[in-house]
Amino acid sequence: MITTQQLDAALRTALETAGRGHRGANPLVGACVLDAEGNIIATGFHIGAGHPHAEIDALRRLGKMPAAKARELTMVVTLEPCNHTGRTGPCAQAIVEAGIGHVYYAVPDNTAASGGADYLRSHGTQATQLADSSAAKQLNHRWFIAKDEGRPFITVKIAQSLDGRINAPDGTSQWITSTASRNHAHALRSRVDGILVGTSTAIIDNPRLTARTPDGQLHEHQPFRLVMGERDLPADLALAQGDDWAQVRSHDVHEVIVRANELGLAHLLVEGGATVASAFIAADLADEIYCYQAPLLIGAGSSSVNMPNTTTLADARRFRLDSASNESLTRLGDDIALHLEPLPRD
Amino acid sequence: MITTQQLDAALRTALETAGRGHRGANPLVGACVLDAEGNIIATGFHIGAGHPHAEIDALRRLGKMPAAKARELTMVVTLEPCNHTGRTGPCAQAIVEAGIGHVYYAVPDNTAASGGADYLRSHGTQATQLADSSAAKQLNHRWFIAKDEGRPFITVKIAQSLDGRINAPDGTSQWITSTASRNHAHALRSRVDGILVGTSTAIIDNPRLTARTPDGQLHEHQPFRLVMGERDLPADLALAQGDDWAQVRSHDVHEVIVRANELGLAHLLVEGGATVASAFIAADLADEIYCYQAPLLIGAGSSSVNMPNTTTLADARRFRLDSASNESLTRLGDDIALHLEPLPRD
Repeated sequence: MITTQQLDAALRTALETAGRGHRGANPLVGACVLDAEGNIIATGFHIGAGHPHAEIDALRRLGKMPAAKARELTMVVTLEPCNHTGRTGPCAQAIVEAGIGHVYYAVPDNTAASGGADYLRSHGTQATQLADSSAAKQLNHRWFIAKDEGRPFITVKIAQSLDGRINAPDGTSQWITSTASRNHAHALRSRVDGILVGTSTAIIDNPRLTARTPDGQLHEHQPFRLVMGERDLPADLALAQGDDWAQVRSHDVHEVIVRANELGLAHLLVEGGATVASAFIAADLADEIYCYQAPLLIGAGSSSVNMPNTTTLADARRFRLDSASNESLTRLGDDIALHLEPLPRD
Repeated sequence: MITTQQLDAALRTALETAGRGHRGANPLVGACVLDAEGNIIATGFHIGAGHPHAEIDALRRLGKMPAAKARELTMVVTLEPCNHTGRTGPCAQAIVEAGIGHVYYAVPDNTAASGGADYLRSHGTQATQLADSSAAKQLNHRWFIAKDEGRPFITVKIAQSLDGRINAPDGTSQWITSTASRNHAHALRSRVDGILVGTSTAIIDNPRLTARTPDGQLHEHQPFRLVMGERDLPADLALAQGDDWAQVRSHDVHEVIVRANELGLAHLLVEGGATVASAFIAADLADEIYCYQAPLLIGAGSSSVNMPNTTTLADARRFRLDSASNESLTRLGDDIALHLEPLPRD
């Protein structure tokens, strides 16, 4: 018999394990498998969209078991197992096939993937929602908001000097951040469905917006490229080759979101420039921020964040280091990187 | 017989141990004691001015020894032992009294405290300068520059939002940084000889500039208060009570340094405002920076660093996280703090 204390401990472990993944199209999810005495014998987590779900990861680490043994096992998972065949098969079915006796889950799944608990029950596996789901809701509080609002999960990237500048007065900005920071940002690109820049960045910097490995190879997954703004784009623009790009002729972030939804982009990376990034931050649409800081003080030039409607300190947007993340505060070469999430809404 | 490899390893340990202290009026110094087989049997470091030197700290940790045993011991220290009675007695004399057989030191002392190696030799303790003193010089590269320039070691404090703002457009700035950051900054005040602010900060914020413990008590050591700028100060100014303060009626940082030298302030903390801090940074007079960042984006308001002469990125001042420091990148409550040193000059 598993005690309440053992369930609480297993949920804490599942929450910690969840932080080894990345939020995006999918939320962070962690899972534990307990033996009949309540000892944790396997853990699993979801790396991110396209990778196995946490339950599958835990079952793989557990390995094959005789049916009689599997019936004695309990799984604790931070989110209700899915009942949905997406890029991976449904977890509820895999759990039944593995023969697990009892599943406890923290947060019920209200998305298109819901119904996992019912599936389990109708196939001989007990399924129980845990009494306290608050920490598991907190783990993905912004992801749930994005889902509720029917929009992509939005990551905003800021790359700046220590004093919050993105260039010097003459516009020079190349190599503000380190190689390690740029590699980190390319790995981030490889995880998202779409990247957004403004027309000025597209035209002046003329980036390809591809996701590249440190040795310059293309990652297997490449993001869709979105450009927002009303200016016409030159035909020879680096990012405008092929057909995996589009322009949203608007300065309204909500029009970008409508278009991203039409395109099926569940995870959008807002790369810049400062005006575009600031518009998403000001609209409370930055679900997470990666802030790369190069160790220099420029003392003049453009600021990384400009919110013209700020008049007093209460107008500021408040964040916290992402406590679930293993990389909430890291050194990247000579730079530092902060992984931030907005403070939960009251 | 101690091998070269053992000496190298002991120096590395001494350098690492040195980082547990704080630079200021004195440099970082670390020491190791080796037995006859070359094993490290004690380490020591210098916390900072007013505390025992690294050699004394190591000897205390070593404890009393019979004279015959002590003769077999070797001390490795990052800086030549002092021959000077300051706030503490001379180290060279203490080493002789402890009966240590041989002292290896990395960097010779050219200050008023020099002559330690000669004292050792004339009192029966061998003293040898290590062949490679480069890492030990690097450890305190800015401290040596300050000494060479005949000026205080200068610490600059910056407290800002993530986007490098120190207030909102209406001037509101209270509580940008956390309680933990403010406690850290008060501990810093308690270690310095003097604190500098500009007349605007003195008048508008009207700070006491005392060093206080988290429960509001005064630290034993209180810094001298300096105000720079040409404006007249009101007689009831909080920092201008008593006689441990002075005004330098100038905007020239070099006049502040002349006055600090006259006052015998060997470690000066530049607290602000932004104009004063920026002037020291622009003049390459920031020997170290503590940069406190509160996790908010203000998006408007004053910048933390303003250097009107910056036109291109090459004009930026470049720093690095202080590699010797145990607190080069830390979390202070919800804030982060960076301990930075300027990149070494070519």
